[in-house]
Amino acid sequence: MRVRPGQNVLVANVPVMNGAESLVRTLIASGVTVCFANPGTSEMHFVAALDSVPGMRPILGLFEGVVTGAADGYGRMAERPACTLLHLGPGLANGTANLHNARRAATPLVNIVGDHATYHAQFDAPLASNIELLARYASGWVHAATSARTVGADAARAVRAALEPPGQIATLVLPADAAWLEAEGEASPLPRPEPALPSGAEVTRVAAALRARKPSAILIRGAALKERGLRAAGRIAAHTGTRLMCDTFAPRLQQGAGRVVVERIPYFAEAIVAHLAGLEELVLVGAKPPVAFFAYPDKPSWPVPDACTIRILAHAHEDGTAALEALADELGAGPHPALVAERQLPDLPAAGKLDAIAAGRIITRLLPENAIVSDEAATSRGGLVSLPFAAPHDHLALTGGSIGSMIPVATGAAVACPDRKVVSVQGDGGAMYTLQALWTQAREKLDVTTVIFANRSYAILAGELARVGASGGGAKARSTLDLHDPTLDWVKLAEGLGVEATRAETTERFADLFANAMLGRGPRLIEAVIDG
Amino acid sequence: MRVRPGQNVLVANVPVMNGAESLVRTLIASGVTVCFANPGTSEMHFVAALDSVPGMRPILGLFEGVVTGAADGYGRMAERPACTLLHLGPGLANGTANLHNARRAATPLVNIVGDHATYHAQFDAPLASNIELLARYASGWVHAATSARTVGADAARAVRAALEPPGQIATLVLPADAAWLEAEGEASPLPRPEPALPSGAEVTRVAAALRARKPSAILIRGAALKERGLRAAGRIAAHTGTRLMCDTFAPRLQQGAGRVVVERIPYFAEAIVAHLAGLEELVLVGAKPPVAFFAYPDKPSWPVPDACTIRILAHAHEDGTAALEALADELGAGPHPALVAERQLPDLPAAGKLDAIAAGRIITRLLPENAIVSDEAATSRGGLVSLPFAAPHDHLALTGGSIGSMIPVATGAAVACPDRKVVSVQGDGGAMYTLQALWTQAREKLDVTTVIFANRSYAILAGELARVGASGGGAKARSTLDLHDPTLDWVKLAEGLGVEATRAETTERFADLFANAMLGRGPRLIEAVIDG
Repeated sequence: MRVRPGQNVLVANVPVMNGAESLVRTLIASGVTVCFANPGTSEMHFVAALDSVPGMRPILGLFEGVVTGAADGYGRMAERPACTLLHLGPGLANGTANLHNARRAATPLVNIVGDHATYHAQFDAPLASNIELLARYASGWVHAATSARTVGADAARAVRAALEPPGQIATLVLPADAAWLEAEGEASPLPRPEPALPSGAEVTRVAAALRARKPSAILIRGAALKERGLRAAGRIAAHTGTRLMCDTFAPRLQQGAGRVVVERIPYFAEAIVAHLAGLEELVLVGAKPPVAFFAYPDKPSWPVPDACTIRILAHAHEDGTAALEALADELGAGPHPALVAERQLPDLPAAGKLDAIAAGRIITRLLPENAIVSDEAATSRGGLVSLPFAAPHDHLALTGGSIGSMIPVATGAAVACPDRKVVSVQGDGGAMYTLQALWTQAREKLDVTTVIFANRSYAILAGELARVGASGGGAKARSTLDLHDPTLDWVKLAEGLGVEATRAETTERFADLFANAMLGRGPRLIEAVIDG
Repeated sequence: MRVRPGQNVLVANVPVMNGAESLVRTLIASGVTVCFANPGTSEMHFVAALDSVPGMRPILGLFEGVVTGAADGYGRMAERPACTLLHLGPGLANGTANLHNARRAATPLVNIVGDHATYHAQFDAPLASNIELLARYASGWVHAATSARTVGADAARAVRAALEPPGQIATLVLPADAAWLEAEGEASPLPRPEPALPSGAEVTRVAAALRARKPSAILIRGAALKERGLRAAGRIAAHTGTRLMCDTFAPRLQQGAGRVVVERIPYFAEAIVAHLAGLEELVLVGAKPPVAFFAYPDKPSWPVPDACTIRILAHAHEDGTAALEALADELGAGPHPALVAERQLPDLPAAGKLDAIAAGRIITRLLPENAIVSDEAATSRGGLVSLPFAAPHDHLALTGGSIGSMIPVATGAAVACPDRKVVSVQGDGGAMYTLQALWTQAREKLDVTTVIFANRSYAILAGELARVGASGGGAKARSTLDLHDPTLDWVKLAEGLGVEATRAETTERFADLFANAMLGRGPRLIEAVIDG
């Protein structure tokens, strides 16, 4: 039933193109060329169209959280959407936690969610559910296709919606008959929406505020955290002495030697208060004011000093890079940025039992140029604090707090950037949520080195139990935070998923293994035992 | 801050009880004594209350799909709800696919979903999301607690809602301050709602229809598929010659030697049409009319013959068992049921390369008395067809079509029934979705034997690709259905999760391993290689 090159398309009863082909062709014409997929029966025509239409790369995930998390990582690095292919409501549900993270990252992403044929919905078959309601949870744009003849146009709109600055999730529900019935052709791609330029009046006002040289900071998020925006921010800092900051969980930050350093806002509420103490001007570029990640009894949720004026130089949908450049020019800042990082690598730690600090220092020291760091190290982050002074790299953070995202994000980043080394640093608790992503790394031979920090607990919760004042901490409470009994064996888990894996319990062994991984190519995993 | 036995509770500033303790006490008083949990910071007071309040058993899952799937299995077997403990919207999202299955199973289940403190919501912190919207997707009852003083009463209502016949999901959102602030005490449990008795007039009408002795069938779902309801159905069959049926994916069916056999409706649309051909009367007991699982071009969605009259003897919320007994009495049926299964075990297959049929026959033959079979064997089910003539057991099916549910369901069933052997039969594709459940089986030392049918493909989809008329099936399409490259190693995966595991590639080896597993206790996994 598919038309192939050279085949006569005028065969009786054979449509030139079905809805699925119209959809896939339109996606490709719109610049969407990677499909992270976990399909089922209702998506079989889309799957078939992957062969009949050239230009789309399908990548299978064995769980939908892999699919959506990988699409997040791809979108962050490629700056254009991948599409997902998900199987009805439950397939979307399994991908939804990582979509929450992608929403917080403002990643452009197009979900294609298969559904029952339109006429089948009335029968409330076992897999039927309210897909649109579920899609609204994390998507900025939701549409259910009604016909094969219009699904191409729907796809073009979905891609455009995903690219609306700063980027969002667009979900297109695809009933099976909208995929299998006849379509006229593909739809034309829509122009990519450009971010708005910030107001000149606001630039002037912020410039005046910074000229006053009160204690100030510029908090940056989004594309302005890449080299060009950071350079403009560094010029402003050189001219005004302002501090430069980014969120604790910035979606993507270009950092490392030779780049302008921004202060990463700390995680805990009281630490944020201390970090912002004395600020009188806070200028936002694509960011919102910092808030506490969680509420705690007797701890502040709002850490910005009362006396601090908050100014918005650029909203998230505006061009933060252009705004910073306009501000630097308005200020008459010179061409040389301040706060440029000098390369400063930590020493290799002494031989002996491995701990998180030592492992982090080794990673920092040995990180290759132009790597991508997918960071869900959580409580094991301590040794990574000098990453801003290591080789230049892109740093990707867990944006929405839903742990388990960053092995999939690393996977998608590696698909987007096949020539760059991806280093994926993961706490063992979080890594368990979507470990299936390792299989996709193996199948696609992606150049990802995963380091599992195996502390064998939900370490952060042990601390949080006390911090929230719930100081009970008896045997039952501890049992919900402890991952011993049985101990997870990450070497076996990775090998079971087809990824070469090794374990390090000493500093020297970890340094050897990690150095080796940096020299080689392809997926591998190192279990860094930092337990007790 | 917690009050312990013997401690003077009149300490200044120490509340006698906080909201979390009020909640946990009320749950226990309402009969909810097992909590499947994957908590985070916002749930720490609930976690602490597990120690300060005696009577609740916490069971940790390393992914929320484990938690909700286990609560489904527990609820199906215990006939009262377990509660879950989930971490904000993303935690609920990760558990939602298995909640979809639980919804289709009409399982009583109470979700406790932690949220930010009420006053923290305004700050839209990274983990904030629209939890109530998400909860509505699968829950019949949703409420967000507003205060520690009323959260106990909320919990009592949630349990009652979960038990509303035939059973549903009740989701209580628990803001952190509703857990940590002071409460007056626990709330009184509410009376368990009883199923309505079906109308006598309808019983009379159905009796008249069956007396006409046209070709008829009774389609049963829910609690009437246990021994007592089946016995009444068998009496009716003996008196009228009617056929007895259950859905393809009945949530729970008591079957095996000595029990009344019901015909399981086949999966594929055209097979259902053939199965129901000629029926003139279809009587529903807690069931809806059968429909095709998926739509296919040129295949029917509605398989019931046009000439067939559909009668509703009992709705799902009514007492189907009482309805069947009333019908049997109204008909004047004798005490002896027809269709009682005689034990008829398949022969042990000949030695040689293992296949799905041989593995299924061995399982059927060696199944111990009173086992629980958690069945997601999918395309590998063929060898299990004579289970209705094996030792009596409870059979649990994947009710909502969201694959990956049944390892968690087996886990929860084993918690509910610690003295019964649980046999969990799983296709390898589906098993990958929520494999983390094996770790919970290991930690809790549950008596579950998992058999992975390793055909190393999404086998059903290879067939479906052709069935839907999407006959392309080129290299890309096949790549999304094939689980080779790399091959999953289930022995390593299970061992990595702390479960003893072995692999069988021959019939005789599988028979040995399975026989051994049936003699022993505790979790183990057998990878039954049935590839190629």
